[in-house]
Amino acid sequence: MTPVQNDRQQFASDNLAGICPEALQSLLDANASGHQPAYGDDVWTQKSTDMIRELFQTDCDVYYVFNGTAANSLALASMCQSYHSVICSPVAHIETDECGGPEFFSNGSKLLVGEDESPAARLGKLTPDAVEHLVTKRRDIHYPKPKVVSITQATELGTVYTVEEVRAIAAIAKRRHLKVHMDGARFANAVAALDVHPSEVTWRAGVDVLCFGGTKNGLPMGEAVVFFDRELSADFAWRVKQAGQLASKMRFISAPWVGMLDGDTWLRNARHANAMAQRLHQAIHALPGVRVLHPPQANSVFVQLPAAAIARLHAAGWLFYEFIAGGGCRLMCAWDTQPETVDAFAADLAGVCAQAA
Amino acid sequence: MTPVQNDRQQFASDNLAGICPEALQSLLDANASGHQPAYGDDVWTQKSTDMIRELFQTDCDVYYVFNGTAANSLALASMCQSYHSVICSPVAHIETDECGGPEFFSNGSKLLVGEDESPAARLGKLTPDAVEHLVTKRRDIHYPKPKVVSITQATELGTVYTVEEVRAIAAIAKRRHLKVHMDGARFANAVAALDVHPSEVTWRAGVDVLCFGGTKNGLPMGEAVVFFDRELSADFAWRVKQAGQLASKMRFISAPWVGMLDGDTWLRNARHANAMAQRLHQAIHALPGVRVLHPPQANSVFVQLPAAAIARLHAAGWLFYEFIAGGGCRLMCAWDTQPETVDAFAADLAGVCAQAA
Amino acid sequence: MTPVQNDRQQFASDNLAGICPEALQSLLDANASGHQPAYGDDVWTQKSTDMIRELFQTDCDVYYVFNGTAANSLALASMCQSYHSVICSPVAHIETDECGGPEFFSNGSKLLVGEDESPAARLGKLTPDAVEHLVTKRRDIHYPKPKVVSITQATELGTVYTVEEVRAIAAIAKRRHLKVHMDGARFANAVAALDVHPSEVTWRAGVDVLCFGGTKNGLPMGEAVVFFDRELSADFAWRVKQAGQLASKMRFISAPWVGMLDGDTWLRNARHANAMAQRLHQAIHALPGVRVLHPPQANSVFVQLPAAAIARLHAAGWLFYEFIAGGGCRLMCAWDTQPETVDAFAADLAGVCAQAA
Amino acid sequence: MTPVQNDRQQFASDNLAGICPEALQSLLDANASGHQPAYGDDVWTQKSTDMIRELFQTDCDVYYVFNGTAANSLALASMCQSYHSVICSPVAHIETDECGGPEFFSNGSKLLVGEDESPAARLGKLTPDAVEHLVTKRRDIHYPKPKVVSITQATELGTVYTVEEVRAIAAIAKRRHLKVHMDGARFANAVAALDVHPSEVTWRAGVDVLCFGGTKNGLPMGEAVVFFDRELSADFAWRVKQAGQLASKMRFISAPWVGMLDGDTWLRNARHANAMAQRLHQAIHALPGVRVLHPPQANSVFVQLPAAAIARLHAAGWLFYEFIAGGGCRLMCAWDTQPETVDAFAADLAGVCAQAA
Repeated sequence: MTPVQNDRQQFASDNLAGICPEALQSLLDANASGHQPAYGDDVWTQKSTDMIRELFQTDCDVYYVFNGTAANSLALASMCQSYHSVICSPVAHIETDECGGPEFFSNGSKLLVGEDESPAARLGKLTPDAVEHLVTKRRDIHYPKPKVVSITQATELGTVYTVEEVRAIAAIAKRRHLKVHMDGARFANAVAALDVHPSEVTWRAGVDVLCFGGTKNGLPMGEAVVFFDRELSADFAWRVKQAGQLASKMRFISAPWVGMLDGDTWLRNARHANAMAQRLHQAIHALPGVRVLHPPQANSVFVQLPAAAIARLHAAGWLFYEFIAGGGCRLMCAWDTQPETVDAFAADLAGVCAQAA
Repeated sequence: MTPVQNDRQQFASDNLAGICPEALQSLLDANASGHQPAYGDDVWTQKSTDMIRELFQTDCDVYYVFNGTAANSLALASMCQSYHSVICSPVAHIETDECGGPEFFSNGSKLLVGEDESPAARLGKLTPDAVEHLVTKRRDIHYPKPKVVSITQATELGTVYTVEEVRAIAAIAKRRHLKVHMDGARFANAVAALDVHPSEVTWRAGVDVLCFGGTKNGLPMGEAVVFFDRELSADFAWRVKQAGQLASKMRFISAPWVGMLDGDTWLRNARHANAMAQRLHQAIHALPGVRVLHPPQANSVFVQLPAAAIARLHAAGWLFYEFIAGGGCRLMCAWDTQPETVDAFAADLAGVCAQAA
Repeated sequence: MTPVQNDRQQFASDNLAGICPEALQSLLDANASGHQPAYGDDVWTQKSTDMIRELFQTDCDVYYVFNGTAANSLALASMCQSYHSVICSPVAHIETDECGGPEFFSNGSKLLVGEDESPAARLGKLTPDAVEHLVTKRRDIHYPKPKVVSITQATELGTVYTVEEVRAIAAIAKRRHLKVHMDGARFANAVAALDVHPSEVTWRAGVDVLCFGGTKNGLPMGEAVVFFDRELSADFAWRVKQAGQLASKMRFISAPWVGMLDGDTWLRNARHANAMAQRLHQAIHALPGVRVLHPPQANSVFVQLPAAAIARLHAAGWLFYEFIAGGGCRLMCAWDTQPETVDAFAADLAGVCAQAA
Repeated sequence: MTPVQNDRQQFASDNLAGICPEALQSLLDANASGHQPAYGDDVWTQKSTDMIRELFQTDCDVYYVFNGTAANSLALASMCQSYHSVICSPVAHIETDECGGPEFFSNGSKLLVGEDESPAARLGKLTPDAVEHLVTKRRDIHYPKPKVVSITQATELGTVYTVEEVRAIAAIAKRRHLKVHMDGARFANAVAALDVHPSEVTWRAGVDVLCFGGTKNGLPMGEAVVFFDRELSADFAWRVKQAGQLASKMRFISAPWVGMLDGDTWLRNARHANAMAQRLHQAIHALPGVRVLHPPQANSVFVQLPAAAIARLHAAGWLFYEFIAGGGCRLMCAWDTQPETVDAFAADLAGVCAQAA
């Protein structure tokens, strides 16, 4: 195996990647301008939020927070009281990887996991039927009252809700008086995959609040909470401040967003990451011993590999996570994943698979 | 008046300043290194926390969070249950400017404001007598039980607790079974002013937890919560994660700390800011109509100015806050405040004072 | 001194009194009826809430909770998010004697104490000016946003807001978009003192939510939260359940309310307690060494007594609280305070005063 | 069918029953004693807590709260921080019927449901294997850290953990540094069923905190939180007060406990209820169409009945809950269930079953 300089960590997660050049340049520009107003009263914050409004073609409210757990938790807390509940998929990040952040910020709202045996559910998606089941199962005051449906776009399994799927979820939500939250940690990858206007898969499809992720797309940190239903953001500035999520030197969060949004860098980054996942899939799906769990739609490939193959790849320095039962591995691509790295990984995998066979 | 490029905002707050060169260089270095482990498992986080331990000459626990409200609130929450209380000065940032963050993160702990008529209290300091009074005033279960004393070093009035003053607070705290929290948003300025080893005014004086501020000292964002009493930090990593304060790309928080700590940049920045406050004080204290409220110790000057003078300065573009009754203005200096800017402000002030007189 | 069987505890608090006969009889009736629906679906709960609606001549929402801290805290939480604040008097029970309950149930809302030098403030009342001052003092996002005005009727100092005073508070509240909460732990005593219809001093004067106290008026436990603004009680049943305030055997809370409301027992009890306070005042106000702080309006007398007199009365078994600086004592009367007990106390007090003089 | 006066509600829940004579007598005695100290400083509170200590033969800490949701939630909150988790059975009352109370009082602790395919799990019990699985499944900071195991004794399915089963759970808990909480809403029924000393199945088996239920056993309201591990109850009095769970007229909670504990009324009540469940089981288990889900161990019988039979019984006024899939009904007996009522129900059921067959 030919070692490549620490690119072998590249398939672990897109949050191991650095800052993309366009975002970095904006950060440097913002720093070069001397003293600037704090707490978001600066020109970059104004400009980037205007750009997000333009991007979505609607007069939404935009707030920046530091990370995805905060974005999701605060957005949910703005829609839930402590005795309400949030319906989500069993693999939703808010359920499995935010250490109870949504419960904490809402002071106790319960997450209700919507499961069914449908093909969509196996792809990590929440289904309208699962939502309907949970809303109608309990209506008494001894159980938290459903108030929000949360979907992740792209999902935690690297799949993407179609516009129709989002609309179907939103229709049930509307009928049952639930708000619709979209965890868009990899929203860019979803939009790139769907090749639709961002508004089509959000507010035009019935989404009330989007957590628009920037970190995994090439920012150093900082996510945008985008309220399409502006009534939900009443006093949200106070909530952000109290929650320790208001950056005093806000420009260092917002200026990189300018760099990302300008000239559609965000979409280009996402398309690249998605393309790398496709390239990886092409290169490995037919290898002996490799079983792709589902064709990649966004920027990750989920595969089952023989235990011995995993061990040898890890020994060779390749970093990736296993968290699906029976050998399922997540191979994640980022805005800066190089074709050479994909090819090197595929070659190594081919080698260990041949060895195992 | 000769306008100086937007340095006229410089006296508003030290959090209007940008990133200092040393911190920025570290950030760029961290970005140049490709993919790196997330959530603090990177070399910069390891290095910077080791440097903080070395700086304090003790084996403390160090956690980074995004901003000062989070640092203070999470530190206090780690010491308080919801039915406990925190004793602080009436001008403490946790009381006046964190929008109830400490109450939120602790799920209801009450802040008890310790006031007295002492000279120290007029300088924005909490006194041992004020603490003793609050601890002994109520001991019944119908009132929150005091659990923590919080002091700000340097204080919100730009003054600095001496080592003896910190020790005296800590002695009362120890006797009354209270923990000691230090809000060190401007800790660097205090250490620079006192010219003591950082350990002398913290753990050697009885401080249990320090929120070591970096943002006002030249970082883009990111504060260090330093637990000298390591029992208090049990499970703190979970608390940080749940609270939405764990950066996935942690290196962009920690690498700038390396730049700040290396070669004592933090202290040099602070000394400079303090010196600018002294220069400003020298230049303006004897002007007619100007009444300095107390000699500056850290990086700010508090003065009473005639209303007309304030209006003219603002009209000329000089930005600063008034928030003390009767015309008191806060003139804050930062790591990058230029002597020329100080002199220009002093000249303008002299002009408007002469005009007023 | 002639000891009277443990009536000497009577002046300590009206919550040391037992259950009045009418309430007890209803409780016994409710118990005699065998199995009954739980959680409030019983006839007594239906009947008593209807009676409260009739009493107030409006279609309000009524919920029972176990005690006054819960009533106030849950009512406030239904109006406040964590980053909001509640304006109240410095002597308000919610501020001084609920151990941070309001902060806990609201997940961090701050209580802002409205103080001024007015005669009304000295009588324990919040004034419109104090409210206006606090609402306008801070409007930035770094400080909790005022959302509710809370007044106690009768006040903690045994005084009573006039209808005009309540209206004036409510007018400011309306203009500043604040809701009006009334802590009515001794609401009955206030209505008895004012001799007005209960609606006059509540919703007709602009009160949105009343915590109608029963315990101090002769119930074993159980307070009614009465929402005149029914929009505020959306999902309140879930809030009560989650907060551990929903009695499964609800009839034992609600049936005694039937007994209290039937035939105006609640008002008769209150009138008696008030009359006993007047009798006590008459008997002692002119004694040498006795200084009544203000003429009693509800069911308590606040007096300054010589330290020696207090000691001798306590030694003789008389129980009462001192909590006003400089010897102020609270002498509380209850629904069952006997004229003989009042006279015996007055005689003893006269004796110790004479001895002291 | 011969209608019996509203005893037809008897099988719905043991919390539809009234106050047992012994508890009522104590309440009346407490009321006859005039003014008494508030907040638990009365003789009944002292006596009843001493009686509980004697009952358990250990120096435990005892606190009364108003209901079961509060007892469980506050007990759990005393052991958990917001980022911790509680392991329980999927049918645990804390999970299914407290409207998120545990999450609210702990400010966000997550309940982790321990499921497996074992016979014990089908009887509503948590198993050591399920606990071990959940503790070891996730150890990273992105998921709440397990801190408590909660078991319900008797379970929500009317079954009872043996002493050995409790010990086995406690052994895993000890090894994994978890505390053990017992929801004893029907603790009396469990002790009666096991016929062991109460200490054997609690602290001697490794239980740290017991919520000892009184309401379902014949009290009007009021549960005892019993801390066998007294370190866990540090400052618990403040927690109870802040949470709105401290009765001012505490004697009306505690005196009935004296009546219940005196002469083992609590155990006699429980034995009676259990015997009625056995009688019911005997009378109906062999009826055609009736399928008992498991032999009753405490005071309830769970059966599957034909839909038509359920409809006819309900039409005839018999009240009971269906909440197990496929026709499972819960028939609950109480301290006051009469043999005649059991027989009348059995006769009616026999009738409708014959009709259906």
